[in-house]
Amino acid sequence: MRLRAVVAYDGTGYQGWQSQAAGATIQDTIERALAVVLRHPVRIAAAGRTDAGVHARGQVIAFDTSLDLSRAGEPASTEGDRSIAGVLRSVNAVLPEDVALLELAPAPPDFDPRRHATARAYRYRIWNAATRSPFEVRTAWHVRDRLDAEAMDEAARALVGEHDFSSFQGADNVPRIAVRSVTVSSVERRDDLVIYDIEANSFVRHMVRNIVGALVEVGRDERPASSVAALLVARDRCLAPPPAPPQGLFLEWVRY
Amino acid sequence: MRLRAVVAYDGTGYQGWQSQAAGATIQDTIERALAVVLRHPVRIAAAGRTDAGVHARGQVIAFDTSLDLSRAGEPASTEGDRSIAGVLRSVNAVLPEDVALLELAPAPPDFDPRRHATARAYRYRIWNAATRSPFEVRTAWHVRDRLDAEAMDEAARALVGEHDFSSFQGADNVPRIAVRSVTVSSVERRDDLVIYDIEANSFVRHMVRNIVGALVEVGRDERPASSVAALLVARDRCLAPPPAPPQGLFLEWVRY
Repeated sequence: MRLRAVVAYDGTGYQGWQSQAAGATIQDTIERALAVVLRHPVRIAAAGRTDAGVHARGQVIAFDTSLDLSRAGEPASTEGDRSIAGVLRSVNAVLPEDVALLELAPAPPDFDPRRHATARAYRYRIWNAATRSPFEVRTAWHVRDRLDAEAMDEAARALVGEHDFSSFQGADNVPRIAVRSVTVSSVERRDDLVIYDIEANSFVRHMVRNIVGALVEVGRDERPASSVAALLVARDRCLAPPPAPPQGLFLEWVRY
Repeated sequence: MRLRAVVAYDGTGYQGWQSQAAGATIQDTIERALAVVLRHPVRIAAAGRTDAGVHARGQVIAFDTSLDLSRAGEPASTEGDRSIAGVLRSVNAVLPEDVALLELAPAPPDFDPRRHATARAYRYRIWNAATRSPFEVRTAWHVRDRLDAEAMDEAARALVGEHDFSSFQGADNVPRIAVRSVTVSSVERRDDLVIYDIEANSFVRHMVRNIVGALVEVGRDERPASSVAALLVARDRCLAPPPAPPQGLFLEWVRY
């Protein structure tokens, strides 16, 4: 049977999502924990392959198990328990503390978490104070200069709609079709945090970090708010400023 | 001259505040950083000695320096800079990422951060969901059972006023005068977080964690809300439930 899970992780200690020969990845970590509990090798597919240091509150994954797990029955934490709720508890007991399975449910046999997703949301957090916060070192980009969040919000809102996001693709990417439909793109200040939220049908690689790089230049008054929309029209990656670092980025949710 | 500083730290990786022979402490870490920047040994006094794993957003410390630091002059990050703003920046550059000096200012020669404090605030954070949050492992107590935050709030409010807090002292403590004046004691739910705030003129050792231990039993409906006030009246440490773990506790601020 096929299962679908919602996963949260603090990406600080990992070399990103995708399995690789050297270094710990989120995918490897979850596959190992599932294999321990299900007692067979497991290969998982994910909605989005987050980069090293990027976090998720609502990554969606899918995998097959040869076991026939019942949905009924009381949740139990014993190893012998073969209900879905029991597997969820056991996997969380095996996983390290910085990764957690939030939900686990049966899925259709052909469920593909990446292709079937209709919308995704990311959040980018900026700690905007003269001094770093010991509590935001792992989860926000520390920008010392006071940012103009209203100008950033004006620039961000210009990205809403269907656009070609070639200018905000990773510089190392093979050129692809980069037309995406953005439904939310806004910046809000909450005391010393500046928060960028973006929702779209899908994202090109490094899109959010590249957009935030440009928005922070707006917030520092190094470029006008209108220049972000102009960047979009130019469709030239080489014009965009450097991307924001990974630790501020969160994959918030994926919708189907 | 004497200086006063406000300090924030994530206590996860430390054996508490107070200097000791074995293990890293916050005091040792800050004293070493100050010695590097000021180029002489430094001994600091703190408003409160937090336990291993406990955090601070607004710990207050004081120390003497043989240097005559100017308040004027532009902040600079060069080593040669001898303004207070320059020392603040340099110390933060030397400190590990989980400790930060938020403010630094001259203080009267006799300033004692512990004795001269007139009020202190602590916050205790509980992550109250079936599954742990990878982002709250270091900064909250994970309680799986759904807590009745309203009952906890009712019990917490009974602690406001001048009372003998002997029942909420650490079990290992030498008995002392335990009369304290509490001005705020309240519980609030914010989605999956249950937050306890307490302000008082001063605290007996382990007071907040012992109170939270009792409040969580109320939230689980294992004891009535009224029993917390009854515990207070009993003035017997042996009647109180086990203390809450350290990672949820934050020293928020100290007032003078």
